[in-house]
Amino acid sequence: MDFFEAVKKRYSYRGEFSEQEIPRKDLIKIVQSGLDAPSGKNLQTTEFVIVDDINILSKIKIILPDSKVLQTCKALIICIIDSEPEKIYHGTHFQIEDCSAAVENILLAITAMNYASVWLDGVLRIDGRANKIGEIIGLPKSKKVQIILPVGIPTETTIRREKKTFNERVGFNIYNFE
Amino acid sequence: MDFFEAVKKRYSYRGEFSEQEIPRKDLIKIVQSGLDAPSGKNLQTTEFVIVDDINILSKIKIILPDSKVLQTCKALIICIIDSEPEKIYHGTHFQIEDCSAAVENILLAITAMNYASVWLDGVLRIDGRANKIGEIIGLPKSKKVQIILPVGIPTETTIRREKKTFNERVGFNIYNFE
Repeated sequence: MDFFEAVKKRYSYRGEFSEQEIPRKDLIKIVQSGLDAPSGKNLQTTEFVIVDDINILSKIKIILPDSKVLQTCKALIICIIDSEPEKIYHGTHFQIEDCSAAVENILLAITAMNYASVWLDGVLRIDGRANKIGEIIGLPKSKKVQIILPVGIPTETTIRREKKTFNERVGFNIYNFE
Repeated sequence: MDFFEAVKKRYSYRGEFSEQEIPRKDLIKIVQSGLDAPSGKNLQTTEFVIVDDINILSKIKIILPDSKVLQTCKALIICIIDSEPEKIYHGTHFQIEDCSAAVENILLAITAMNYASVWLDGVLRIDGRANKIGEIIGLPKSKKVQIILPVGIPTETTIRREKKTFNERVGFNIYNFE
């Protein structure tokens, strides 16, 4: 798929997925796109666990019982960063940036291959959900689950949320939004 | 350009750019890709100022005298977030994630249109550089420069840094890197 077509088609799918399995070769291609994203000082801090084992998936599904995408997904991409990222550059780290750039590549790859997904992030920060998922996949305490991406073939046409216009968010040469 | 080709071709260019101007229609298409990225609660928090005025560019260039890409770029995309992001979801905000996802889309769009760029981020956090750039473009105190992306046509073949292998960063079903 053309790059700009993938960008336009990508959206946050929150409906049910079909029963169809996702071949591992597709999951590998999708996550490889994440590995190709840039990272601060090229440290490539984000790691991934792809869950496609039905028993492990079913344990994770218990944690978010109301999420249609999670409940019906055939595969889940778990994005992992350090629990306490080392400050690598003048008192700062880039692990959130690294992970976000990788996730965006992955979401576009999912779109380009006619699957769908949604960036699940804040919802993991309630009730220790991220930690619970980490326990299921054997994550050491030094690592944490930052983002999860359920993957599948969409079965519903869900509403794409409105975007602001170009002129509401972009200016030339001078900031003049306020 | 095919999506996966753009992902593979994107890299952090740090050489000199050609003298060729970049048409505004190209800059608009590039930044529109950033607007199409996902954002936490769809709040679309990142704003952009595209600098292509030679006088304003020359003032910004003084701030990073050793950066070949900045010194020779014909256009600069400035990515802006709130100075003190409001916590919008259970005590957290997503402005770094929003900005990073938008920047990744922009970097891929730049690649797909045969330009080059590099994500300049940490280097702005030294000596008040981000603030100095903010002052030049008239940014209010409530906003800050987070990332800048110099854009141009590359004139050099620069080294692409090594990436880890798939198996070094990705596992199936269980985390077993340690």
